[in-house]
Amino acid sequence: MTVPLEPFGKPRGERADAARNRERLLEAARAMIAEQGTRHVTMDALAERAGLGKGTVFRRFGSRAGIFQALLDDDERRFQERVLSGPPPLGPGADPAQRLDAYGCARIPFLLEHHAIARAAVDRTLPVPAGAASMTQPHIRMLLGQAGLPPAHLDGLAVQLTAALEGPLLLYLSVEEVPEPPAPEAPHLLVEGWRFLIGRLLAG
Amino acid sequence: MTVPLEPFGKPRGERADAARNRERLLEAARAMIAEQGTRHVTMDALAERAGLGKGTVFRRFGSRAGIFQALLDDDERRFQERVLSGPPPLGPGADPAQRLDAYGCARIPFLLEHHAIARAAVDRTLPVPAGAASMTQPHIRMLLGQAGLPPAHLDGLAVQLTAALEGPLLLYLSVEEVPEPPAPEAPHLLVEGWRFLIGRLLAG
Repeated sequence: MTVPLEPFGKPRGERADAARNRERLLEAARAMIAEQGTRHVTMDALAERAGLGKGTVFRRFGSRAGIFQALLDDDERRFQERVLSGPPPLGPGADPAQRLDAYGCARIPFLLEHHAIARAAVDRTLPVPAGAASMTQPHIRMLLGQAGLPPAHLDGLAVQLTAALEGPLLLYLSVEEVPEPPAPEAPHLLVEGWRFLIGRLLAG
Repeated sequence: MTVPLEPFGKPRGERADAARNRERLLEAARAMIAEQGTRHVTMDALAERAGLGKGTVFRRFGSRAGIFQALLDDDERRFQERVLSGPPPLGPGADPAQRLDAYGCARIPFLLEHHAIARAAVDRTLPVPAGAASMTQPHIRMLLGQAGLPPAHLDGLAVQLTAALEGPLLLYLSVEEVPEPPAPEAPHLLVEGWRFLIGRLLAG
């Protein structure tokens, strides 16, 4: 099967339009969330706020959960950029122990700030995504290796430290009636716990 | 409102009957799982295997998921007894570092062995239980305290180590199509990772 070529300029024009609409919708969604939280962001309300047709919203996001997934993807990409090419100690240039410490210090507030959006992004007709999109596990594994931990332990520890870091904030995503953020996971407790754990792990 | 008293002996007799039926049903379910896995355990098949009426199965368990929840509860209770009053180092009597080590060494195989049952116990109309029934978090917190870790870190670390220990095995419970056990969580990797992590954490 051959795909007929579009006239020059047309696809590029359509893609640019699509990208502009997407940006405009995400901006509108962010503004609505900042004003009233996630609850009032519906397909209809978002279309109205962005001054676009409801059909456009459906084409871009597919469902209400899709709006929040797009917001998360966008912020996750920016977080990854800070880790991959931002200033140290979160970005490259610090030693691995400092980078692991900094990763937890940045990641826990990021997950807490995105808790309401992440909950709204859960499509209850689908299983909870098991943190697959995050760079956390390969990043931790890389830094543990650079820190000189025994190669035989890298895979197990990377899985377990990812769970230690993200699990307390992911486990509640699909629970309907939990207060936000969940009570026992006060951010400073988790940040300080992470720093202590990493400090001891890499001091040995 | 007053509850009318039953004649002596009747409630006790009914309760004993109920307990016997429950035992008989759980035994039949275990035998079916051992022979054919969880897939073939249905309300009808279980009633037939146990030689009891379908109504009895519904009264005891409520739903198919309820059968597996009852099996898990039963095994979880036995696991807790080993921890609370079994021989050391899992039970009392060993030092806290040894007990933490032993807890992970026992808990990871327990969770892996129960993975299929735990998946079948998930009622997809309800959120995944966030490991609430397990004694893991308070037990870890107690042992970390006994090991002399700073009191300010006990809550955070107990949450994070619980996630490190149980998270990798819980996160996949609600995923439909994952092979069992999930590939990256080979039991020896997780057991060795736990031992290394606890060793370093408590060596400081």
